[in-house]
Amino acid sequence: MSEAKFDELRRRLAEISDLGKTMALLAWDQQVMMPARGAAIRAEQLATVGRIAHQKFTAPEVGKLLEELRDWSEQQEYDSFEASLVRVASRDWEKASKVPADLRAEASRAAALAQPVWVQARKDNDFASFLPVLRQNLDLCKRYIECFEVGDEPYDIVLDDYERDMKTAEVRRIFDYLKEHQAPLVKEVAGQAQVEKRSKTFNLEAQKVFELEIAREFGFTDDAWRLDPTVHPFASGTGVTDIRITTRYFADRLEGLFGTMHEFGHGLYEHQIDPALERSSLARGVSLGMHESQSRMWENLVGRSMPFWRRFFPRAQELFGDALASHDVDSWYREVNAVEPSLIRVEADEATYNLHIILRFELEQAMLADEFPLEQLPEEWNRRMWEYLGIEVPSDTEGVLQDVHWSGGSVGYFPTYALGNLISAQIWERIVADLPDLYDGFEQGDFAPLRDWLREHLHRHGRKFTPAETLERVVGTRQIDPEPYVRYLREKLAGIYGIPA
Amino acid sequence: MSEAKFDELRRRLAEISDLGKTMALLAWDQQVMMPARGAAIRAEQLATVGRIAHQKFTAPEVGKLLEELRDWSEQQEYDSFEASLVRVASRDWEKASKVPADLRAEASRAAALAQPVWVQARKDNDFASFLPVLRQNLDLCKRYIECFEVGDEPYDIVLDDYERDMKTAEVRRIFDYLKEHQAPLVKEVAGQAQVEKRSKTFNLEAQKVFELEIAREFGFTDDAWRLDPTVHPFASGTGVTDIRITTRYFADRLEGLFGTMHEFGHGLYEHQIDPALERSSLARGVSLGMHESQSRMWENLVGRSMPFWRRFFPRAQELFGDALASHDVDSWYREVNAVEPSLIRVEADEATYNLHIILRFELEQAMLADEFPLEQLPEEWNRRMWEYLGIEVPSDTEGVLQDVHWSGGSVGYFPTYALGNLISAQIWERIVADLPDLYDGFEQGDFAPLRDWLREHLHRHGRKFTPAETLERVVGTRQIDPEPYVRYLREKLAGIYGIPA
Repeated sequence: MSEAKFDELRRRLAEISDLGKTMALLAWDQQVMMPARGAAIRAEQLATVGRIAHQKFTAPEVGKLLEELRDWSEQQEYDSFEASLVRVASRDWEKASKVPADLRAEASRAAALAQPVWVQARKDNDFASFLPVLRQNLDLCKRYIECFEVGDEPYDIVLDDYERDMKTAEVRRIFDYLKEHQAPLVKEVAGQAQVEKRSKTFNLEAQKVFELEIAREFGFTDDAWRLDPTVHPFASGTGVTDIRITTRYFADRLEGLFGTMHEFGHGLYEHQIDPALERSSLARGVSLGMHESQSRMWENLVGRSMPFWRRFFPRAQELFGDALASHDVDSWYREVNAVEPSLIRVEADEATYNLHIILRFELEQAMLADEFPLEQLPEEWNRRMWEYLGIEVPSDTEGVLQDVHWSGGSVGYFPTYALGNLISAQIWERIVADLPDLYDGFEQGDFAPLRDWLREHLHRHGRKFTPAETLERVVGTRQIDPEPYVRYLREKLAGIYGIPA
Repeated sequence: MSEAKFDELRRRLAEISDLGKTMALLAWDQQVMMPARGAAIRAEQLATVGRIAHQKFTAPEVGKLLEELRDWSEQQEYDSFEASLVRVASRDWEKASKVPADLRAEASRAAALAQPVWVQARKDNDFASFLPVLRQNLDLCKRYIECFEVGDEPYDIVLDDYERDMKTAEVRRIFDYLKEHQAPLVKEVAGQAQVEKRSKTFNLEAQKVFELEIAREFGFTDDAWRLDPTVHPFASGTGVTDIRITTRYFADRLEGLFGTMHEFGHGLYEHQIDPALERSSLARGVSLGMHESQSRMWENLVGRSMPFWRRFFPRAQELFGDALASHDVDSWYREVNAVEPSLIRVEADEATYNLHIILRFELEQAMLADEFPLEQLPEEWNRRMWEYLGIEVPSDTEGVLQDVHWSGGSVGYFPTYALGNLISAQIWERIVADLPDLYDGFEQGDFAPLRDWLREHLHRHGRKFTPAETLERVVGTRQIDPEPYVRYLREKLAGIYGIPA
């Protein structure tokens, strides 16, 4: 009886999962393949599939099934597929069904309309023209928050959308630690001349070859992955054996390579989810923070490490000729790890990145609380840039207008980037303890032990557990701890800049 | 009141159109982009979106709206959007709602399972292993036919799926004419030594360049089209400004070029549909026969014409060097128009192609009527190949197992290929009468007059009218007439082989 009901629930959720993956394909294609003039009808297709998926998920029948299955599912093993699916879907259903369809539609429409306004405003360095749509997005965000019972802080509601159960107060505590311990590190090394950057040119075709070679050593296979160029890199896919990552190429730097390694990390997380979870609510990464821990791990802890470059620098020299002729592996390692406070978040180095996030986290809360008139946002932005990073912002284009998130109505998303950095170091300490030969393996091009460790301890679980439960399974504690990251940074920068370890 | 109901109908049909185009993208991606291991979950995604689209369309609410709108819509102008949409959707609804969802699902599943069996059987030249799934597909086809009231002949039901209102008796009459007038033409020219083929090699990269240059002169633009390589060429897209055609490349011949021009014809038809019909049941080509008339027109009446080659042969010589060194435009024109009875339909020339279709049309009817035990199908196939084309079939792989259609449960589809050939010549006679300078324009690379004529007289209408009504608007008669095609063939072959004109 309950088994039959569970099968019915599972069937319904499988249908919704299919629609979700279909939307992922519509969106991937839009960014990667679609001819420009396909945009208008693509928006309709995305809206239609999204609306149907939402209607099907929030249908009263689903709520009823979840209700009826609660007792039965609690008698199953906690980590069984059955118990996990009912538990996770119930939580999703509670949250989704509290938001009226009209508000959701209005927010989608507002975001779609705000997007081109933001693009133009950024181009024109014209914050005033962005202000009305920002205001509207914030109003909608407040109305969204009002759909829920606010506990300690309103910001908790939106944060929870991206990082389930995370509290604003907890993030604040973590970020305060970073302000105290990471920010001074940046000041210690900034402006030191240990690292010298010369302008160079990296052949674009050679970049493509190099990135694919590295991705393949990491675990990219042609039968289950794609790598394509786009304007903004991202990871997507339609299932655990159809993973799609994108990248971009610049002639004067290897940013694309680090982007590819970053997206590979996201892709690998989805690829290594237990296939038995496919077509259910459980078949994706557990939270944005945990996802970002995986991308940052492959980009930074692997891709900016000395053993990695001992493996790949000779090949880079072969492929890029002149560009690296005056480098050896040591000077190149210093170059890819150079610390320099800069204006743009997505180009920030490991040491300054989190500071960009702290600024946004504080501004988002202030905007939701109407702490200042929205017209003042650029000043508030610029003041913090000076305070946290010590640099002046010459234009709103390079300041408050640089990120896409607020134009899309995404508030509460930014903190997960920094949390991901922190988690990556937390996990890394555990991995290195378990696999003492890990870095030696990198020098031989052997990344399988890392991949397998991640599958076993993290990836395969998908969304079966909460983020905190998942973290506990991986590192033994439910708390995100900023210390390992700061420790990792200090050690690395000690080697490069000679600051005290 | 009726206006509000019409808006509601239109909204529902727009949603179904979005789902249909979404399926088109899922299928295009599957053929063109998807990593191999994405296949299993892609099948689920296609099934889910297809099922939802079908459920939404056959919902009683849609039937009720159509019923309530009938009188109102009949008071609108016959060619108005409103009258056309209600008329066409009513016809679609009648047909779709007569088929139980279970039967439809069973047929989809059987087709999906039969596909790999067919691939293997063709590879192994083993008809016996294909027989059980063919039998099952035919049984399902018979059950499908039983859902409807059969008028004159059961085959009418399936034929109507691809060519609305067309009758088996009418096709038989047309094909009898071809047997009498086209088949003898083939015998007149076959084996004549007027055309000599030498083996050559066409650089693959040069083929890509050449095809894109030609497609662009035809009207392909990067902002609304894509051209990609696939195993089996096809045309698809997600809207009138997102048209996707595919092709393939062979080193020893320019088959890919003719394939590209063929798919361009399909694509142009969809591209030039009135944008006001977008997101409705009316925004696609009116029938498979009419669609094929457009692909065959660009492939053959344009692409195998002397003026076309006067334009492009010099460029071909530049691009392909040695391969065409011993050719001049006359000998090359003869080569691309060579007639030679052969085993494989998709490689057949203009003069023999229809005979391949007649054979399949006759066998499909015979199979539905159980005129012989299915085990005998290869013999029946081979006997007709000898009778109509004068060649012996050395293996079932090159005979009865060559086409994908029956493995997919598509019965009634084949005749539309031949009807398309015939319609293309019917339309062409009208175009040439309207545009006497058409061929001169081709020599200058001017294809706009042809494109514009087709938009104005045919493409823009989409599915507003029936196939017969549409044909009447284009050529002034509702009947498909085989005479222009035979006349066109005889004239062309007279020039090449010296037979009496």
